[in-house]
Amino acid sequence: MKEMSSDEQVRLTVAYDGGEFYGFQRQREEPTVQSCLESVLKRINRGTVRIKGAGRTDSGVHAWGQVVCFRPLVSLPLQSWPEALNSRLPPSLVVREADLVSVAFDPVRDARWKHYQYRVSVGRLLSPFEYRYSHWVHHGLDVGVMRTAAGRLLGRKDCASFQVTGRPVHSTVRTIYQAAITEEGHGVRIDLVANGFLYKMGRRIAGTLIEVGRGAISLPDMDRIVDARERSLAGPTAPAKGLCLMRVCY
Amino acid sequence: MKEMSSDEQVRLTVAYDGGEFYGFQRQREEPTVQSCLESVLKRINRGTVRIKGAGRTDSGVHAWGQVVCFRPLVSLPLQSWPEALNSRLPPSLVVREADLVSVAFDPVRDARWKHYQYRVSVGRLLSPFEYRYSHWVHHGLDVGVMRTAAGRLLGRKDCASFQVTGRPVHSTVRTIYQAAITEEGHGVRIDLVANGFLYKMGRRIAGTLIEVGRGAISLPDMDRIVDARERSLAGPTAPAKGLCLMRVCY
Repeated sequence: MKEMSSDEQVRLTVAYDGGEFYGFQRQREEPTVQSCLESVLKRINRGTVRIKGAGRTDSGVHAWGQVVCFRPLVSLPLQSWPEALNSRLPPSLVVREADLVSVAFDPVRDARWKHYQYRVSVGRLLSPFEYRYSHWVHHGLDVGVMRTAAGRLLGRKDCASFQVTGRPVHSTVRTIYQAAITEEGHGVRIDLVANGFLYKMGRRIAGTLIEVGRGAISLPDMDRIVDARERSLAGPTAPAKGLCLMRVCY
Repeated sequence: MKEMSSDEQVRLTVAYDGGEFYGFQRQREEPTVQSCLESVLKRINRGTVRIKGAGRTDSGVHAWGQVVCFRPLVSLPLQSWPEALNSRLPPSLVVREADLVSVAFDPVRDARWKHYQYRVSVGRLLSPFEYRYSHWVHHGLDVGVMRTAAGRLLGRKDCASFQVTGRPVHSTVRTIYQAAITEEGHGVRIDLVANGFLYKMGRRIAGTLIEVGRGAISLPDMDRIVDARERSLAGPTAPAKGLCLMRVCY
């Protein structure tokens, strides 16, 4: 049994259905992922425990591999944390794994890359079992041209075109390692891997690639958008429910 | 464009997330599949239209291929019905198809067979994206022995052991054409095809096969249960959310 030392903290990998929360970050009134986890941690620890998450996912955005850290007030074997939490959490929020990291570890600063996935359902109908986790578009999508457009995003780029105002940042330069388009069932999956994402950048890129897929944005336009570093040119911000934070790598 | 004659009615294939409804059948207060469809049909038809469904699925039971019939008060091209309804229905209830059948057609009496699917998630954790559509069991399941037990259900049988009291029936004899166990991801899928299902029979069979899978019911016990025609011996009624009415064949 692994014992925790005073210079260690607990790191959790958590999954959640974003449709059940008002985003990740604690809010005064509304149920959020952070407030839900902290309230269960308070019961287990009999005292206030604050968590820090790798990404402040927006209201409606899902996660399979969100990462959070906290310093417990009670001594519990590491392998007991997931069960202790899951037995008290709602089924829409699940702790998948726990490990120990140094107290110096910072889940935001130390992230090497993040993987976001965006799911689009295409066609006449949206299944009642998919509408929570997928953005529905009525029109067909040209997957080939979407793939070419996605390729234009790769590498170290000023991504200012794909941010949404709201949060000040030092730099809008990010490196996109993967931007893949995959046909899946009656839809399309967009996988984005980058060393960081600006505010709503995943949804803005997805919205732009969907516009490319339906022919509303051409490939030369896509190049102009990427080069412009200017918010007004890109496509719309795609709905939150299609997006899922899949993994944060350290 | 197909014109409807006075001796025809509209038949719809509908899918729904049973977790959003208090079952199929109309109730005074609670939202049900029937009341939701009839309220939208009333708006389109500007008058009361009653529907008849192939199966009165319980509260929480899902459907991919429920079948309902109704006689419209307005003349609408057949192919317009799904869109007219879907644009007014919640996303948890979707009309997949529409066709015309004789007014003599009865969705209950004329059904030749029905296919129900039961999904079980096995293991330490239940994904926040699956808990609505799957029954979670913590313990492992022996798929081989479940398959053997399922085979004992095939053929023309008195299924009284698998009914739940509540609805009087003339006969408890049904013919089970398929009872298949399939491993799927981190779980097991149970497919049941029969010429009819007694009240909660699908969930009762699923509950019994899960007990077989975890070793609580042996194969000789399974034989005794099938032969007994007696409710008290079978396993528990598995939770509604794992069950889905996949198809009704005419």
